[in-house]
Amino acid sequence: MTLRIENVDIVTIDRENRIIENSNIYIQDGIITHIGDEIIGLDVEETIDGRNMAALPGLVNAHTHMGMSLLRNYADDLPLHQWLTEKIWPVEANLNGEDIYWGSLLSMSEMIQTGTTAFCDMYFFMEEVGKGAQESGIRAMLTRGIVEDRKDPDKKLNESRDLFNRYNKTSNDRIRVMIAPHAPYTCSPEFLVKAKNLAQELGTGIHIHLAETKREVQESYERHGKSPIKHVYDLGVLDVHTLAAHCVHVDHNDIELMVEKSVHPVNNPGSNMKLASGFAPVQRMLERGLNVSLGTDGASSNNNLNMFKELNLAALINKAVDEDALSVKAVDALRMATINGARGLQWDNKIGSIEVGKRADIILVDMDKSHLTPRHNLVSALSYSTYGSDVDTVIVDGKILMKNREMKTLDIEKIKYMAQNRAKDLINR
Amino acid sequence: MTLRIENVDIVTIDRENRIIENSNIYIQDGIITHIGDEIIGLDVEETIDGRNMAALPGLVNAHTHMGMSLLRNYADDLPLHQWLTEKIWPVEANLNGEDIYWGSLLSMSEMIQTGTTAFCDMYFFMEEVGKGAQESGIRAMLTRGIVEDRKDPDKKLNESRDLFNRYNKTSNDRIRVMIAPHAPYTCSPEFLVKAKNLAQELGTGIHIHLAETKREVQESYERHGKSPIKHVYDLGVLDVHTLAAHCVHVDHNDIELMVEKSVHPVNNPGSNMKLASGFAPVQRMLERGLNVSLGTDGASSNNNLNMFKELNLAALINKAVDEDALSVKAVDALRMATINGARGLQWDNKIGSIEVGKRADIILVDMDKSHLTPRHNLVSALSYSTYGSDVDTVIVDGKILMKNREMKTLDIEKIKYMAQNRAKDLINR
Repeated sequence: MTLRIENVDIVTIDRENRIIENSNIYIQDGIITHIGDEIIGLDVEETIDGRNMAALPGLVNAHTHMGMSLLRNYADDLPLHQWLTEKIWPVEANLNGEDIYWGSLLSMSEMIQTGTTAFCDMYFFMEEVGKGAQESGIRAMLTRGIVEDRKDPDKKLNESRDLFNRYNKTSNDRIRVMIAPHAPYTCSPEFLVKAKNLAQELGTGIHIHLAETKREVQESYERHGKSPIKHVYDLGVLDVHTLAAHCVHVDHNDIELMVEKSVHPVNNPGSNMKLASGFAPVQRMLERGLNVSLGTDGASSNNNLNMFKELNLAALINKAVDEDALSVKAVDALRMATINGARGLQWDNKIGSIEVGKRADIILVDMDKSHLTPRHNLVSALSYSTYGSDVDTVIVDGKILMKNREMKTLDIEKIKYMAQNRAKDLINR
Repeated sequence: MTLRIENVDIVTIDRENRIIENSNIYIQDGIITHIGDEIIGLDVEETIDGRNMAALPGLVNAHTHMGMSLLRNYADDLPLHQWLTEKIWPVEANLNGEDIYWGSLLSMSEMIQTGTTAFCDMYFFMEEVGKGAQESGIRAMLTRGIVEDRKDPDKKLNESRDLFNRYNKTSNDRIRVMIAPHAPYTCSPEFLVKAKNLAQELGTGIHIHLAETKREVQESYERHGKSPIKHVYDLGVLDVHTLAAHCVHVDHNDIELMVEKSVHPVNNPGSNMKLASGFAPVQRMLERGLNVSLGTDGASSNNNLNMFKELNLAALINKAVDEDALSVKAVDALRMATINGARGLQWDNKIGSIEVGKRADIILVDMDKSHLTPRHNLVSALSYSTYGSDVDTVIVDGKILMKNREMKTLDIEKIKYMAQNRAKDLINR
């Protein structure tokens, strides 16, 4: 099966951020085999017209909780503690596998419609998420979020091992699994080490929340006499590949520890603002060489799973916070949302840029819009002016998941209907 | 001519923020004549199906520079001073009336497509903007931005007077005019008073930039020994209705002076972030009873004219800045973008809410989207999850400007083509 995207402007996100204008991309058996002039005489099964389109690597949502989409706009404008204890946790306690299945399909459809081709999800009933990922065709990193259960500490670790055995490197290596101890404040030091050991044993990484709120940092000092970052550093948790969500309240020393251990922070600007958590020092982390990626967090604290919105936020906010119009430039935000995300998921040898030899996770953005006119600078346009709804076509692993905004693998009407019903049922349960 | 929108959920933005579910709106000769049950036997020329839609008052973009859309994405990621002196000002010096005409039509089309029904524009060649407003059908407040010309200080004031005489209350009172001395740092004290006097004489208000950057405030203290707000207060400028763009760097005393004079601040969160100006104390101003509205500023510092993006930013940012998840709630952001904008433009007796007797400036938002599913809380959904591209239908003064996302008054293909050509020509001039 050979697919050609013709006459397209390619934002490669390669090492030099090269832009190749009015060119062609050839995809064979899911792999990008050629970028450049048309190959005369080659048998092409499908051609996509790329005129007025920009091709870029599919966006990577490096931290989300997809099942929470059922609670989108359910309980907003509440203080964090009340939000969690009175609204979110009581409802989450009633979630079942079928809720998660439909909530996750809803999330995947929203992500595909806004240009995300890969995600890292942290939630529970993860086998249902895996099922949805198989069906949708999106690239998935599954991580079973573990709040330690002191009565049976091994149970959820065993679930994670089962998830790994069942899904890791399945669907042509489109689905993978990491281990996800929720956070240092919901897992004991002993448990964190156990989780790390499991990741090490399975040859995968860990996915964890770190330094999200000021309160978390204060409590870490009270309990352990050190910051959350130093705490997990001292435990050796960071000795495995670590994808660290948030990293909002990190000081100079924390950043240096993260540099030493090559921790991969995930910035979640929308959620960090909505929950009043604060602003992560993104520019400082980037300057220290940290591989900062981007995530939406869950839809109940965002309230979208739209990576174009997220990368726009990342580019804008940090300028004002740093009082520097050069902080997090357009190209930095694009890299955070693509190659950096791929790196955070240890998938950068296969995705995250448009280069010959990589898997074809590619999106086409329709630039023929009023709000993208006139055309002066493509990278600026993508970071500062493009909406998720401008994404026209989404390809994952060489397969078309959306074309002309029409979903090809998911029954969107059924998903919206089922998600609406599960959500209504859930909050009345 | 009677128009009915049927079976629609109405977000009234009235005094009680009432939401009326599954109801009807009747519009006769541009006026909302009835909200509620169907009127049997009434002759209706056109019916719009409002199922799965939310009706809300059209958004008011209370501060923008429409001609600058030609420079969208032209010169990003530069320090403010270099951006202005090396990029923006040299190009602006070459702008002509035809550029402004097409740039403004481009801006109006983007605004209509994202649910804005009224704007307050500050630029030059304003007669061309007026022409575009007449053609597009959008509601327009025209203000000729005046950087004082010391050689001929009356020239631009006379242009403003001419603009007023030519356009104010024309097109069935759909177009109005205010006087716009650019800022205290580009106009002398004497000139500011002259501008205020002209506004007073014409019975209109003034539109001015105030306290946008830290540097502006510092220089005001150096030059006048007081803040920009206190400076214009002492001059008596605030004795007329004042629409004050930005108000980022205002302290407690400034806010109290603004309260005393009922100044109408316009928050521009996107532009204030992109230019690294900072964060306006929006929640504090709202709590002191100030009528804070919202604007996009120009597209070269935003880089969109999308009020849904702007109101989402306003709702999100202030929570993180204030470290309070209750800062600028969903409903506050919606009010800022509608009724507060109308008040800032002294138009709130006619627009800004959906109430019987008001002019019909109404938008319909298509809620049948993945990213708006499930439906728990309509106001939250509109502030936190809705994109400008979800706007389906736009009505201004009872006239349909867009339906099913199809533009009815503007030739969008021609506008994009002409804007692209003018922009390319402009930067090579």
